[in-house]
This record gives sequence, structure tokens and C-alpha cells, in this order.
Amino acid sequence: MEVIVHKYGGTSVGTPEKIKNVARRVKKTRDAGYEAVVIVSAMGHTTDELIDLMHKVSNNPDPREYDMLVSTGEQVSAALLAMALQGLGCPAVSLTGGQAGVVTEDIYKKARIKEIKLDRLKKELKAGKVVVVTGFQGIDSRGDIITIGRGGSDTSAVAIAAALKAQVCDIYTDVDGVYTTDPRIVPAARKLKYISYEEMLELASLGAQVLHPRSVECASIYDMVIHLRSSQNETEGTYIMSPERISEEGGKMEKKEAVRGIALDENIAKIGILKVPDQPGTAAELFGALAAEKINVDMIVQSIHSAGTQADMAFTVDRPDLKRAVEVTERAARQLRAENVVSDSDVCKVSLVGIGMVSQPGTASKMFAALAEEKINIQMISTSEIKISCVVKAEQGKKAVQVLHKAFGLDKVA
Amino acid sequence: MEVIVHKYGGTSVGTPEKIKNVARRVKKTRDAGYEAVVIVSAMGHTTDELIDLMHKVSNNPDPREYDMLVSTGEQVSAALLAMALQGLGCPAVSLTGGQAGVVTEDIYKKARIKEIKLDRLKKELKAGKVVVVTGFQGIDSRGDIITIGRGGSDTSAVAIAAALKAQVCDIYTDVDGVYTTDPRIVPAARKLKYISYEEMLELASLGAQVLHPRSVECASIYDMVIHLRSSQNETEGTYIMSPERISEEGGKMEKKEAVRGIALDENIAKIGILKVPDQPGTAAELFGALAAEKINVDMIVQSIHSAGTQADMAFTVDRPDLKRAVEVTERAARQLRAENVVSDSDVCKVSLVGIGMVSQPGTASKMFAALAEEKINIQMISTSEIKISCVVKAEQGKKAVQVLHKAFGLDKVA
Repeated sequence: MEVIVHKYGGTSVGTPEKIKNVARRVKKTRDAGYEAVVIVSAMGHTTDELIDLMHKVSNNPDPREYDMLVSTGEQVSAALLAMALQGLGCPAVSLTGGQAGVVTEDIYKKARIKEIKLDRLKKELKAGKVVVVTGFQGIDSRGDIITIGRGGSDTSAVAIAAALKAQVCDIYTDVDGVYTTDPRIVPAARKLKYISYEEMLELASLGAQVLHPRSVECASIYDMVIHLRSSQNETEGTYIMSPERISEEGGKMEKKEAVRGIALDENIAKIGILKVPDQPGTAAELFGALAAEKINVDMIVQSIHSAGTQADMAFTVDRPDLKRAVEVTERAARQLRAENVVSDSDVCKVSLVGIGMVSQPGTASKMFAALAEEKINIQMISTSEIKISCVVKAEQGKKAVQVLHKAFGLDKVA
Repeated sequence: MEVIVHKYGGTSVGTPEKIKNVARRVKKTRDAGYEAVVIVSAMGHTTDELIDLMHKVSNNPDPREYDMLVSTGEQVSAALLAMALQGLGCPAVSLTGGQAGVVTEDIYKKARIKEIKLDRLKKELKAGKVVVVTGFQGIDSRGDIITIGRGGSDTSAVAIAAALKAQVCDIYTDVDGVYTTDPRIVPAARKLKYISYEEMLELASLGAQVLHPRSVECASIYDMVIHLRSSQNETEGTYIMSPERISEEGGKMEKKEAVRGIALDENIAKIGILKVPDQPGTAAELFGALAAEKINVDMIVQSIHSAGTQADMAFTVDRPDLKRAVEVTERAARQLRAENVVSDSDVCKVSLVGIGMVSQPGTASKMFAALAEEKINIQMISTSEIKISCVVKAEQGKKAVQVLHKAFGLDKVA
């Protein structure tokens, strides 16, 4: 029997009524003759509520205990969904990440999945049950509960789908699919029928937060098709797959625009380390120290200072990590004999994404011109083959997205 | 190093502030040079809230999923307490029942603990950590999460204390200790300094709900001293121990009253099965069927019917089990060709308890006389060597306790 993997986010299982809706949807899949595995997030704002509770008890919570605490959210929703399925006459069982064989690295809060031991999962499927698995978590070699980072339920779903060799991983969420940009910022934004892993990865990691970046990375490694769609209706969403598969879809394929989407990331902060004596190993020293503290660094820009023997470096981090990142950077700065460290959390990042950009020169200059025309000052620039990102003042982010969406003709139907 | 086992109930960990208070108390124990293991219940009304949520999703929840769901409550409080301890500079780690090696029978919702595998627990203690263990749960041979019945955290605590060969198991709750009866019913009720396992067992199973009966049973098997005390102050509570140990305490020992305590159980219902043809195996058939459905039967009274060839049987069950119990009894009644089945949930049970009763005749008649004087009609009577129970109308329960407390002089200081 073919296996279908569904994933439902926190909004889709936010109330008992919504959980029953999900159960009806899953049952339909099973009645159509498929085996079904369902990965669930915690209900609604449960995780945030648990974190609030945590902050009332501790100023500096231990990552191990954090995992122990927040992993309960998914366990609640998984058990409730299994019960709801049983209530519809559909045999079901819920499994924790550990019970489902999701083995992670021995790192709290941000571990990667190492392997999926399918024994129990396959046994339950063989017994005719829908298997509901807690997303966002697994178990490590010590038997400890490990979470795999906020939004990690998407990754859980893709990893389990890949291990089970499912044809597609349906990720249900509260949006219809991937849009050219956030429709709340640009009402004329269009839904994309297909998007490549690479493009999605850039969009997701750049703040189009419909899908966890690591889930896309995992999907691309295993060539797993993700169908991102709404849990509120039966409409097709957006298929995320390799460019090869997209080409195979032939006539259905959209015209290849240079720019496929625009993302806004408002959760960043900028750090500058100024007048660093220019010598080999400087960057390695600084970013090694940040990595050791598990601080995610995104854009990195280095320029030669006018004096010629010193460099300025700037980079962005997630805004909640700013305080820790500044501390680490200041320590590194003292060691590197840099002049000083500056930081600014009043910034955001606007990015253009599109595989086609690589073959269409002039995208960058067109972007800079469009922003300049609106008097939007660019603080940092970083480019790759399929994206261009600019850091601008926080309050100008939305305006920048609107301007660029229009300038690159994304509001026109392809 | 000597190990001290503490257990804190839901009220004692009901808010972040209370959790921090518990942490301070535990730290004091550790600073005094003891190893400490702490067993916690779920915060406040968490378990009830989870069960409410469950009823919104399912009319007939699967016991396995029930365990998966409600076990999260203790996991939350254990993680929070570990964080609070760390916040005080006290190394700590939280363990789920499974991680702490609490192995149970393969039965959901009401399993018994089979053994405690101490490896992880001892390793963490050796590493200098306070170990916080989720009460009320363990893991079975299939790796499933198993709960051990409402109030089972007391049992978890005693079992772990016994396995660790602790000197005493401190059970902290929102009352000061064991009283001669419920002080809300009889303001003159006195706190007992010592009480034997047997007496406590009768009081606990009869509705004095300060301690889970199975925890007392477990303590008596392993001769573990339970110190039942308040989490709000440092006052000594009541020691629950064997009569031998109580005697050893010598001068401190209280005068042996015939009646040590009076309990009121308002959570019962009565079922009668009338005119059962009187033949061997009848009782076995009926109570076997009830046991198969995991319905707890308490008092059982059988009398010969006037006709001589038929018997009437009556018994009590927990009030929430009444509907199911009546169904099972009616099925059994048809098979046994009994005349009919009657039930009544408008009843309660008043019990006198005391080891000394066995050597002081006349306690029963004195009880019946005291009740008769207040026009309290007795519907069922059952006696054992250390207790006498009467079922009376629900609305007369409190009055009966007051009358008996006075009649047996329990309000006088011994």
C-alpha cells in the first residue's frame, strides 16, 4: 500500500474542533486506500505559553530542560488527534519522536535528525493504524528528549516521508501556498504553482516563514516533493520540487521569471566589528566563536578599511540572539585587537530570489535603482547566484517589498 | 551520601512562584549534605484541563492515548522545577518516568510499577545533581508511556524512595498531616503525630484523600516511613509507619485510642442485584465481570433473602464508574437469572478506623447508637478488624462524621 505523509501546523490543530477537522481529512486519505502518517505541531500558541511559563521560573533556562518542557506540546496534540481519528472509527496510534524512531544528534534545542528507525512505525502501519507522530522532536543516544528547532515539525515530516519512501509530503498550513511575496504587504502577490527547492530555501530562510528551511534542504537531499497547501480547503497549493521535475511537468510549467519571489525578514539584527587588523584567520576566529555558541550567522560582509591594513566586518544574526552575539563578538574583538563593535536591531532584510537571475544580468542594479528612487538607503548588500539581499532600516522594509514587487512585474500573471 | 526523597503535589507546584519555593526548599535539603530526588505532580489543574480537552475531541478516549496525553502535565512541572533549581545554582536534571527507569505493567491508565531501574538516576545523583522525576508515570515493555492512576505520584515517590533505600519519603501537600477527620467538617479535628500503614490505608481508601492508598501499601511492603507534611511551612506533619516503629518511638507515642480517625467518602454509588438464585459461583461470576472491566468494587454485602433460595447482593463503586458498573451488573443479572438491578448515587460512606478497635468490643454498637440518635438511617454496613463502614444518605454524611467524632472523644487531646 502506498503511504501518504501529512503534516499539520499549530494553527491547523489549534482547537478541538480543528483537530476533528484534521481527523476527517486524514480519514479521507485512508479511505482512499492509502496508509497514512501524520506529523503534528503543538496546538496554537502552546509552545509560546510553555516558554512564557519557563521565563517565569528561570532567567537562563537549561537547553536540556527546555527540550523536556516544550516537547510536551506536540505530545498533547498527537494524542488528541489519535483519539479524534479513533472517534471516526479509524484505528490510530500516537507516537512520540522517540517512539517513532526519530534519532537526533546529542544536541539540545537545535539538533539535526540522524536517522529514522522505522520498526515501530511500520509495525503500526501494518496493523492498519494511522500513525500520528509528534513533530519537532526526537531522542538522542542518551535517551534524552531533543527538539530540532522552532518550526522543526516540517523537517520531521519530510524526514519521515523520505524514510518511508512516500511519493509526496503534504504540509498543511494556514496559507494556500507560496506567494511571490507576503500578500499582507503586497495584495497583488500571486500564488506560485511550482517552486524549486533552491528558490524555496532562499525564500524560507529569508523570512517567508511558511516552511522551515531545513525541511526544504532535507527534501532536496531526498528528492521528496513537498505539497504546501491549506488545511482550510481542498485547493492545490504549491509544489516544491527539483527544477528537473518542474520541467517534466511540461505545459503546466510557469514562465521562468528572473525573480520568482521577494522575502522580508524582520527578525534580524546587524553587528559590525570595526578596524580589525587584516590578517589570515580573523574571520575564522570570530565566526568560530559564534558557531561554538550555536549562534546562527546569516549575511556576512567584509570590506577593506581605507587605511588598508584593517578590515571592517558586518553580519546579521537572529534578533533574539543579538545580546549573546554581541558578547561573543566583543570577546573576539578584544582578542583580535579590533577597534570596536557596533550593533543595530532596527533593521530588516529584503531579498529577491529566482533561479533565473543567474542568466539575466542587471537584476541587482535594477533592484538598487528601484530602492533609491524611494529614498530607501541600503546598509548591507549580499548576493548569491539566485538571490540578492539588502539590509535596510526596519521601518522601510514593507515599502521596499512593495516597490520591488512592482518593479519586477511579479503582480502580472505569467 | 544519604538520599532524601521529596514529593510535591499539584497544589505545591501550581504556579511559577510556588515552583521556585519548592526549589528553595529542595536546595536547603541538598545544602544540608543530602542527595535529593524530587517527584512532582502536574501543576494545579493541568491534568483536569487536559482531560477537558480530551472530552472535546473524543467521547470514548483510548486508554493508550489518554496516558500519552495526561503524562505531559508532570513533564512540564518537572522541567520547570529543574530549571528553577539551576537558577538557584543547584545542579539539577529532570527525568520522565521512562528515563528514571520506572517500569510498569503493560496496562494503560492503572498500571502497577514493576521495578525501578536505577542506572540513570544513580548516575545523575553521582554527578551531583538533584534529580526531578515526573510522578504518576512510567514506561512499559513496549516503550509506551503508562500512567499509574490518578494520585499515583505518591506511589511513584514511595517506590523510588524504596528502590534508593532512602530513610524517609517526604510527601509535601497542602495539608499539615493526617487528622482525626476532615477539619472542614469537624473544626475540632486533631492532627495525628503517627499513624500505622493499615490505619492510613483505611483512611485513605475511605476518602481521606491526602495520600494515594497504593503509596501506603507500597510503603508498608518496603517498610518505608512516609512523612506527610505541608509545603507551606516547616512544621512536622504525620509519620506513617509500621506499628512496631511507632512503639519504638516510645515516649512520643500517643495513647492508643480504639478509634483513630473518621473518614467520609462522598464519591461512591451503590448497586443492588436482587433475588439472585442462591448457588455457588454467583459472586465470582458478577465480580469477575466487574474486575474484567477494571471497575473498582469497594464494600460488598450479601444477605439471604427471606424466600431462602435467593440472595440479595449490594456493593459500592466509585461514582464515575456507576453507569458502566450498572451495565456490567445487568448483563450478569440476566445470566444469573436475578430479578433486577437497582442503583443509587445519592449515598456516601462514613468509616471509623483504628487498630485498637479489634481489642475493644462495643465500638460498632456505639457507632450505630450515635447515628440512630441523630435519625441517620444506615443503608449498608461492613466491618473489618480495624474499621467499620456505614453507607448513609449523601446529605447526612457530614453530620454523621461530626456526631461520631464527638461520640468517640476524638476532639480531646490524648
